[in-house]
Amino acid sequence: MPDTLLHAIVPAGGAGTRLWPLSRRAAPKFLLDLTGAGRTLLQQTVDRLRPLTGDGVTVVTGTAHAAAVRAQLPELGEADLLAEPSPRDSMAAIGLAAAVLARRHGDVVVGSFAADHVVRDTAAFERAVREAVAVARAGYVVTIGIEADHPSTAFGYIRAGEPLGGAGTPTARRVVGFTEKPDAATAAAYLATGEYRWNAGMFVVRAAVLLDHLAAERPALHAGLSEIADAWDTDARPDVLARVWPDLEKVAIDHAIAEPVAARGGVAVVPAAMGWDDVGDFASLAPLVPPAGDGDVRVLGAVADVLTVDAAGALVVPGSGRTVTVLGIPDAVVVDTPDAVLVTTRAHAQQVKQVVDQLRDGRDRLL
Amino acid sequence: MPDTLLHAIVPAGGAGTRLWPLSRRAAPKFLLDLTGAGRTLLQQTVDRLRPLTGDGVTVVTGTAHAAAVRAQLPELGEADLLAEPSPRDSMAAIGLAAAVLARRHGDVVVGSFAADHVVRDTAAFERAVREAVAVARAGYVVTIGIEADHPSTAFGYIRAGEPLGGAGTPTARRVVGFTEKPDAATAAAYLATGEYRWNAGMFVVRAAVLLDHLAAERPALHAGLSEIADAWDTDARPDVLARVWPDLEKVAIDHAIAEPVAARGGVAVVPAAMGWDDVGDFASLAPLVPPAGDGDVRVLGAVADVLTVDAAGALVVPGSGRTVTVLGIPDAVVVDTPDAVLVTTRAHAQQVKQVVDQLRDGRDRLL
Repeated sequence: MPDTLLHAIVPAGGAGTRLWPLSRRAAPKFLLDLTGAGRTLLQQTVDRLRPLTGDGVTVVTGTAHAAAVRAQLPELGEADLLAEPSPRDSMAAIGLAAAVLARRHGDVVVGSFAADHVVRDTAAFERAVREAVAVARAGYVVTIGIEADHPSTAFGYIRAGEPLGGAGTPTARRVVGFTEKPDAATAAAYLATGEYRWNAGMFVVRAAVLLDHLAAERPALHAGLSEIADAWDTDARPDVLARVWPDLEKVAIDHAIAEPVAARGGVAVVPAAMGWDDVGDFASLAPLVPPAGDGDVRVLGAVADVLTVDAAGALVVPGSGRTVTVLGIPDAVVVDTPDAVLVTTRAHAQQVKQVVDQLRDGRDRLL
Repeated sequence: MPDTLLHAIVPAGGAGTRLWPLSRRAAPKFLLDLTGAGRTLLQQTVDRLRPLTGDGVTVVTGTAHAAAVRAQLPELGEADLLAEPSPRDSMAAIGLAAAVLARRHGDVVVGSFAADHVVRDTAAFERAVREAVAVARAGYVVTIGIEADHPSTAFGYIRAGEPLGGAGTPTARRVVGFTEKPDAATAAAYLATGEYRWNAGMFVVRAAVLLDHLAAERPALHAGLSEIADAWDTDARPDVLARVWPDLEKVAIDHAIAEPVAARGGVAVVPAAMGWDDVGDFASLAPLVPPAGDGDVRVLGAVADVLTVDAAGALVVPGSGRTVTVLGIPDAVVVDTPDAVLVTTRAHAQQVKQVVDQLRDGRDRLL
């Protein structure tokens, strides 16, 4: 095992609604092998981190998924999985892990890395994280800004300012601000400036710095998480969790810390091009799946179960043992599972959420 | 039971390849309820004929489907099903039935009506057949010509000539000729003249007239069918069938009789608008299926198993108990069965045959 450059916090949550019927409540996106790699997104995330963290990986997930996470990560230490009684958004998840790690290891550098994203260039990822750790040691909240290669409306953006210029941090820049997902025209304008990066939710920061910012910005949430962290490695954990957790504020770390601290000049960004994707829908999934057959058809699963004719760019996910045939629909998306079939196109990938919303009414068992 | 105006011959064959995966070798089109009527196409065909034929319905089918035909038509007499050892096209099927019926009943009027077509206006059908019988009694081969309401390239055409003008046969006209399926421009030109009708393969003719024409046009086929018919209701049937049937010429009744006899002025047509369709593919099936939900979506099967969003004109056939969801594909055709799923559009309905052709190679079990 390598040294522990940083302690990674891996929030493993999120429904992956737009990937229904592949992603379900009982088998959310992070538990799935979505790229045909033979490893799930969670496993790939941890594989990617181990050279940087050694044993220092902590997964935060819901109690419903704790057993599945342990099954997929048999090497994970007993103490390295924090189970949340209910979802309280990213600030509570990351803040709890940071507080627990601070009590166990002192003022270590921690970094948050979502369990359901894809990174194709691992070497670039490692370089970026190493630089981020160096910047974090100087007291910054450091985010890794993904080079925007198209005007995406699916991601939030980070606006980079002047270079930090420190030794050993050649590419880091100060963050001017964060923005929500833009409309298409705004996204195009962002891309044209060259100053904007995608916000992949990767934050690297000293535990004490993070907790100090939290105390300043969200004192009640900080107090609640501190009380829980104090009790975490004791017999009092269940009682304290049951009493304190339900009332914790639900807020994203971006809003709770990154935005206000950036406004005060305390956030830095390390730009990186690492083939990152959040695999948010079938349109973003398709290029990550191996090609099979003519016309750039992509098949996630048994290629022998798929037959396409005049369906260039189709994404087919055979998942029930049946033969799936697609005729005359370019960019078709067909997902076949034992209890549900989805038929759509890449262009409608974002609207899969509408289908799921309609299923909530009476067909909840399919979600 | 009504009197026997004519003896109906119902050829029950054809694979319905373009309706795969609904239609299979083991469950061909005529054995299926394709309109949600609760009756299969075969049953609907016989239901439609009974008021005209009484008990006089004879079904000709392959030995592989004889048991299924009997199960669907429990009222069919033992002698009223003729099982063919192998497919020998429509002339052999209809000629055999006509020869057997002539031996049983003398020179009765016979009529051939395919087991896998749809007729929505039964009253118009009955009127047309009654007039056809009257014309047939005068010695003509009579076909029922379907009023063409669009320039279809999927059907052959009948060109009508001058009215026959006989008493009791007000609409019948002499046939100038038959044509194969035309291209789109030719079909449009046909429609513009008003002289062309679709050939639905309905032929009404005295048994003796039919057999005499057959003897003149195809003497070897006539001799073979005569030998088989002589033996049919005797113990010799199996031996004679086994010896004679395999060498019978495979030819359609249109080519063997209708075309040459029309050239000599011996064929008449009774025009009719009866909501006829041969249900040749999913595009022609869609309008026959009950609407379900917004946007003229059609569902053949359990409506509760289907969810469509922005899929106006879609045809969905849920057939495995799975929920089928279609998003953003107008005119989509989705057919879900326990071992195969087809995803296409109405515009590609004719090309389903290409999919089936590709499945022959290695996935024959699905056909």
